[in-house]
Amino acid sequence: MIFLDTTAPTFAVDFDTLVDARREASTDLARDVGAIIRSVRDEGEAALRAFTSKFDRHDLDASGWRIDSADCTAAYQALEPGLRNALDLAATRIRAYHERQKPADTDYRDAAGVRLGARWRPVDAAGLYVPGGRAAYPSSLLMNAIPAKVAGVGRLAMVTPTPDGQINPLVLAAAHLAGVDEVWRIGGAQAIAALAYGAGRINRVDVVTGPGNAWVAEAKRQVYGVVGIDMVAGPSEIVVVADAKNDPEWTAADLLSQAEHDTTTQSILFTDDADYARAVAAAVDRQIGTLATGSVARTAWDANGAIVVVESLAAAMPLVDRLAPEHLQLAVDDPQALFDQVRHAGSVFLGRHTPEAIGDYVAGPNHVLPTGRRARFASGLSVLDFMKRTSFLGLDETALAELGPATIALAEAEGLPAHARSVALRLRTNR
Amino acid sequence: MIFLDTTAPTFAVDFDTLVDARREASTDLARDVGAIIRSVRDEGEAALRAFTSKFDRHDLDASGWRIDSADCTAAYQALEPGLRNALDLAATRIRAYHERQKPADTDYRDAAGVRLGARWRPVDAAGLYVPGGRAAYPSSLLMNAIPAKVAGVGRLAMVTPTPDGQINPLVLAAAHLAGVDEVWRIGGAQAIAALAYGAGRINRVDVVTGPGNAWVAEAKRQVYGVVGIDMVAGPSEIVVVADAKNDPEWTAADLLSQAEHDTTTQSILFTDDADYARAVAAAVDRQIGTLATGSVARTAWDANGAIVVVESLAAAMPLVDRLAPEHLQLAVDDPQALFDQVRHAGSVFLGRHTPEAIGDYVAGPNHVLPTGRRARFASGLSVLDFMKRTSFLGLDETALAELGPATIALAEAEGLPAHARSVALRLRTNR
Repeated sequence: MIFLDTTAPTFAVDFDTLVDARREASTDLARDVGAIIRSVRDEGEAALRAFTSKFDRHDLDASGWRIDSADCTAAYQALEPGLRNALDLAATRIRAYHERQKPADTDYRDAAGVRLGARWRPVDAAGLYVPGGRAAYPSSLLMNAIPAKVAGVGRLAMVTPTPDGQINPLVLAAAHLAGVDEVWRIGGAQAIAALAYGAGRINRVDVVTGPGNAWVAEAKRQVYGVVGIDMVAGPSEIVVVADAKNDPEWTAADLLSQAEHDTTTQSILFTDDADYARAVAAAVDRQIGTLATGSVARTAWDANGAIVVVESLAAAMPLVDRLAPEHLQLAVDDPQALFDQVRHAGSVFLGRHTPEAIGDYVAGPNHVLPTGRRARFASGLSVLDFMKRTSFLGLDETALAELGPATIALAEAEGLPAHARSVALRLRTNR
Repeated sequence: MIFLDTTAPTFAVDFDTLVDARREASTDLARDVGAIIRSVRDEGEAALRAFTSKFDRHDLDASGWRIDSADCTAAYQALEPGLRNALDLAATRIRAYHERQKPADTDYRDAAGVRLGARWRPVDAAGLYVPGGRAAYPSSLLMNAIPAKVAGVGRLAMVTPTPDGQINPLVLAAAHLAGVDEVWRIGGAQAIAALAYGAGRINRVDVVTGPGNAWVAEAKRQVYGVVGIDMVAGPSEIVVVADAKNDPEWTAADLLSQAEHDTTTQSILFTDDADYARAVAAAVDRQIGTLATGSVARTAWDANGAIVVVESLAAAMPLVDRLAPEHLQLAVDDPQALFDQVRHAGSVFLGRHTPEAIGDYVAGPNHVLPTGRRARFASGLSVLDFMKRTSFLGLDETALAELGPATIALAEAEGLPAHARSVALRLRTNR
């Protein structure tokens, strides 16, 4: 963890270093991932069989390609009631929030008599990657699957590795709840390739979303353009802006809720009170020792954590904008005043009683958010990622007479005579 | 050109071949483009100087890095009045159409008392690639720059190669009209790298859009994630659905308006009348001989063109959906009935008096559209490509008491104790 003070002479340089720090592994997987994708394209199921046997020690033919929807239903029904209710509440609230994202079609006639508009339609099929092992989060499954279903996607195919045949029942329960249509027992770059290109019994999809390791992320990048993808994801981060009226223990837990995810995550506190800053740092150190995830959190906090003491919280906001954080907590009495200053953030958590964890599970907004300064240009996952827009126009003879001459002039200036002719032939008939 | 008939026994196979045909060059530029990008990242202006001297034979220091905005203004004022009016009309109509794309923010309180919403903001800066030479289309500049300006982007930096120092005055005029803020005399992969990472006097941007050759397209793909990009673009295509009541000459010109762009473009006619199909084919052959662009159009039509005779136009629409065409003309009396069947198309042109060329220039919708079957999942360029959405939520003590227990249950089930603690600490205080 580094301690910065905006009044220190080296602050500008130190803060630049913080903003520009690359926490993403510069692993060069492109070639290996490319080879896996080509194998799946060329050999289909045979390649999937071989990779799944090698990486997951799972024999697809002997032990099953798919998990039956009845198994997902059973996993859901077998959940401890408190947990089942929590998952139900999450799904209901995520669905309600995303319903409001459905875009409106337009269809109008303008002054020139031209009919104009745009029409939104869902993609036919979406593929959802769900990691196996530690990072198999049912909440992520809901956050990816529900927007697709709200968009109206007809077919939602999930892929998930089942190493040594093992399956996470929580994930199956969430798949049932979210209405996933197919669950395939494949993972890694080979699963992304199967979704993008199709492979034997697995039909290709149109959009692939969902978290994964570096191989999965690189595979998604390589199939981008063949299918749509959600985004290039990187290590997660939180920025907390807090005054001294907060309980240091609350703030410490907020910072640690990010740090415990992964050793590459980043937690940053901005505060206008140096004593409070020290109290939070002490609370973080104390709490880490009591967490089952403490070792991960310790590594992340030591390597990437930061506390920045500012002269006023308002003065912190331009610095926050440079970080363009995935998560931004504004733990003050009047969060709106600070929020009005924010231009770049994935999701903002307003007030002292809105810890980021609420947004991870049950609040409703999506927890798949732009990381690594990408909130400068990217948005969280939404219903729009599973839809596309068709524009349209219609002219009658009168409207064509009005717009035709300008079209001909521009087409001729650009050296495209057939463009000009397609209009001129129609105008001629009108005369 | 191939002639297909849906009643022929080989139709299914032949149509599959048409749908799956890859018209995109499989050039393997990834390594060379990667090396250029690394040079610009590492060496900044020095790399730009060297590449621009080598590829464009233009000395940036001696002959200028930028084109002055006064030069753009002068180019606009020097336009022949008819052409200037045409460009003005195009800009006005493109702006009016895109104004309607501006997204609405949401901000509401739900039954649990949770404040929820989403706020859209423009990116700070956008970069616009404009090719030099033959494909330097002022219309493309308007189609890329105006949505950015409508979105509210503060800084729009254009890059364009000026081979041997040559500049296209039409492009400068369009840059003036669209309100481009900076014009840099660089091109190729090196220009994309400069926009994405910044290089000396060129500040980095947040989103890069605009057409380019294979090097530019590969460079955009490689910087995707560092910045936002518009899309992976490929060869252009048109599908025309027409009955025998159309003038074959009109339809032939429509097909050729696509074919004349590039030898990789594809023009496809669906009709329910074999005699009309033959008449259009004959008209295409006749018209090609009279076009200045005839040689390009001939190559494209011979290699990629198709005429498909169907039993009814309604039966054509599922086939059209499989092609997911960039442009779709519905040249019939009741285009709406066919349009209602369409799920996948970039832009649709309704009725006999709506040639696609109108949409290229002055109608208003964007002409940057998904190609190569990508309308299955992608949309045309829009104001949204230059904006991003920040979600937000705010809870008071009562709302946290309602949502907190479910959050704790899910966090514990996922093995994330600091998440659970950040909520539990706050709930405890309430008791």
